[in-house]
Amino acid sequence: MNSILIIGAGRSASACINYVLDKAREHNWFVTVADADPKLAEAKVAGHPNGRGTWLDVLKVNDRRDLIGRADVVVSLLPAHLHLEVAHDCIKLKKHLITASYVSQEMYRLGDDARDRELIFMGEMGLDPGIDHMSAMRQIARIKEQGGKVTAFRSYTGGLIAPESDDNPWSYKFTWNPRNVVLSGQGTAQYLENGKFKFIPYNRLFEEYRTIHVPGMGDYEAYANRDSLLYRDVYGLAGIPNILRGTLRTAGFCDAWNALVKIGLTDGGYPIVDSGKLTYHELMEGYLSPDDNAGSVKDRIAKLIGEEPNSVVMSKLEWLGLFRKKKIRVPNATPALILENLLLEKWKLKANDKDMIIMQHEFEYELKGKKKEVVTTLVMKGEDAHNTAMSKLVGLPMGIFVKLVMEGKITSTGVNIPVMPEVYEPVLDELEQFGVVFAEHEKA
Amino acid sequence: MNSILIIGAGRSASACINYVLDKAREHNWFVTVADADPKLAEAKVAGHPNGRGTWLDVLKVNDRRDLIGRADVVVSLLPAHLHLEVAHDCIKLKKHLITASYVSQEMYRLGDDARDRELIFMGEMGLDPGIDHMSAMRQIARIKEQGGKVTAFRSYTGGLIAPESDDNPWSYKFTWNPRNVVLSGQGTAQYLENGKFKFIPYNRLFEEYRTIHVPGMGDYEAYANRDSLLYRDVYGLAGIPNILRGTLRTAGFCDAWNALVKIGLTDGGYPIVDSGKLTYHELMEGYLSPDDNAGSVKDRIAKLIGEEPNSVVMSKLEWLGLFRKKKIRVPNATPALILENLLLEKWKLKANDKDMIIMQHEFEYELKGKKKEVVTTLVMKGEDAHNTAMSKLVGLPMGIFVKLVMEGKITSTGVNIPVMPEVYEPVLDELEQFGVVFAEHEKA
Repeated sequence: MNSILIIGAGRSASACINYVLDKAREHNWFVTVADADPKLAEAKVAGHPNGRGTWLDVLKVNDRRDLIGRADVVVSLLPAHLHLEVAHDCIKLKKHLITASYVSQEMYRLGDDARDRELIFMGEMGLDPGIDHMSAMRQIARIKEQGGKVTAFRSYTGGLIAPESDDNPWSYKFTWNPRNVVLSGQGTAQYLENGKFKFIPYNRLFEEYRTIHVPGMGDYEAYANRDSLLYRDVYGLAGIPNILRGTLRTAGFCDAWNALVKIGLTDGGYPIVDSGKLTYHELMEGYLSPDDNAGSVKDRIAKLIGEEPNSVVMSKLEWLGLFRKKKIRVPNATPALILENLLLEKWKLKANDKDMIIMQHEFEYELKGKKKEVVTTLVMKGEDAHNTAMSKLVGLPMGIFVKLVMEGKITSTGVNIPVMPEVYEPVLDELEQFGVVFAEHEKA
Repeated sequence: MNSILIIGAGRSASACINYVLDKAREHNWFVTVADADPKLAEAKVAGHPNGRGTWLDVLKVNDRRDLIGRADVVVSLLPAHLHLEVAHDCIKLKKHLITASYVSQEMYRLGDDARDRELIFMGEMGLDPGIDHMSAMRQIARIKEQGGKVTAFRSYTGGLIAPESDDNPWSYKFTWNPRNVVLSGQGTAQYLENGKFKFIPYNRLFEEYRTIHVPGMGDYEAYANRDSLLYRDVYGLAGIPNILRGTLRTAGFCDAWNALVKIGLTDGGYPIVDSGKLTYHELMEGYLSPDDNAGSVKDRIAKLIGEEPNSVVMSKLEWLGLFRKKKIRVPNATPALILENLLLEKWKLKANDKDMIIMQHEFEYELKGKKKEVVTTLVMKGEDAHNTAMSKLVGLPMGIFVKLVMEGKITSTGVNIPVMPEVYEPVLDELEQFGVVFAEHEKA
């Protein structure tokens, strides 16, 4: 095995590409980076003797199969809905496959085929999902090894802005897919507390956040994820009475975001017919009842969402420019798309901004009749708007896993997520060399 | 032309099939009714000498094309997403096509092809959409003929239960697609009032209903539809300052439905992971905050949604059985699907129940410097659970339009909705013979 194919050379690909190229020299691998934009692919390879950048339209079946056929391991950094085509090729052409995306039901159905051909298809091999699985599994295994029984597992991750780069009232900037940020939480959040199922619909999600203390960093807000119940079995925690996965935000974020939800600005289902002609002010006025004509649009919106006109939340809405008589200029756009376009301007990383990832796991367990608690925390900052902690933490686990597969160190086959010791132990160990270190706090 | 193909023989097909068969004898037509269930198709034809029922799996391309190839006019009563395949065949095989569904963007793109082949593809040829377009257009044309200028158009339709069959606290039963009832209104409702765009997000839709007086019937509630702005141009009302389309419900419905929305029971996006194991009581308890443990689940839900425990709204929720310790028994179901399954039991039409359609248009216009207003109202009741007003009013317009096409009376070609006089005049005239009569009230 000496050939690696990385499909996709976008923003989040750099850390993975750099890691693999870096290891290519000593291992004598050849790395092909393929993208719809060949210049971008070439730029990411940057003349490295063990690599080349090339053009690929992933929907062109023959071209795609030609490239995949010449590789031993394939990394797909494509948008999630495109992985499946690549996966089918990998089955046919007998290639290992690695992605950072959630493993879909369709992908899981390829498990037997992959196993029969002794292939590993590893999904959820990024940050969240990815490092969250691995770091949680290591801790759960340690507790079990001591003879402990996990009674509560709560896990929070946030892609945030470092305090030193926090210069806006929202204390937030985009460090990953803006669309996913705007639509985050739609559906019904599900978790377990004291053995009981708990459900939070979207309309209450940003009201029912909890405050999480992050040692050394202070208090953050966490809202529940939709998927907390999905990992009970695969984590070996079937029957656990408390499990929660959540998303971290800087204090004050949830109340302000909830205001946008209440107004109606996060609806991504159907376009506003005349959005191209409206101003933000007209859009906001449109959300007000026609019976309510007294006062400014801002004051009436405040009343609509139960805020004082000069509240902190209202000042955040105003800072976004929602009450300005400026044209939206996005035709036939859903409210969510209008909001995303506005936020893209306001929440843009500046060249020297540092992003920050916080991941914190809380474990409660019983050991020899005693209740124990341990909290593990990762705080990692990026270097600048280009070299973000986000892209590192998404890309490095994939890169390291490529190496493990190329070295023949992985015996697992089939469709997997990284919850087995042969994966998470070496990946987490090597991640520590890159500063990915979880601090551990035992509670009495 | 002597051959008609009707694809789909389900509940809503009877009135259309019966009408076309009835006319077939005198016109010497032959009517083929095709359905995945050939027994059902045969039952609907009921041995009529001019008809036959036959089997068709609409996804089997060759079988489908064979049947379409032998027809002159095709009526598709399939679920909306299947019309497009039939439409492509109709283009290829040069057949006219009629449906009662909303015309999709993809369907509109076939307009030039249909026009080139001198075919008419008529969509939205049922009740709503359908009779609403036709009856509105007739009135708008009359106002314009007099030299009037329409300044406001509001149109409301409800598929309801007749007062004499109203024997449940919701005053509602299912008379059409239950799934569509449960998911109704999701998105952002849009309309125009006094020249200003108005938007209502789903989370306020059932709060911001208006009360509509229906002459002879009393007061009903109306919530705004998502699509009010879409018909301005096609109705010839570009620039109109007031336009609203809404859905009618019996008084008291919207507050109670809003309670279900607030709780979170209408979310159809993602499944509740363990829904198969839960009781309704556990589901409702799951929506409560874990910090709120005092009192019964019913009392705490009341508090959550801002109701008194013994309010009218709470009594409606209780009547549904939402607080009973009965198993849900629907695995991996979204909240909306759980709710739909529950309502299917509770809102089922009894054999002798009569449904009732109310459609009301309100027109404000200026005529010779004077402000005028006219309200037109259709109230129509069904005979029983089988012969519903709903199925009649959806099926008859299609049947009548089939006749017009077969008789060569339609000159329009391309993809259309029924807004041209050559369509709505004869269809509305003939509908009157079936009791479809709009009462007209002029206001001073």
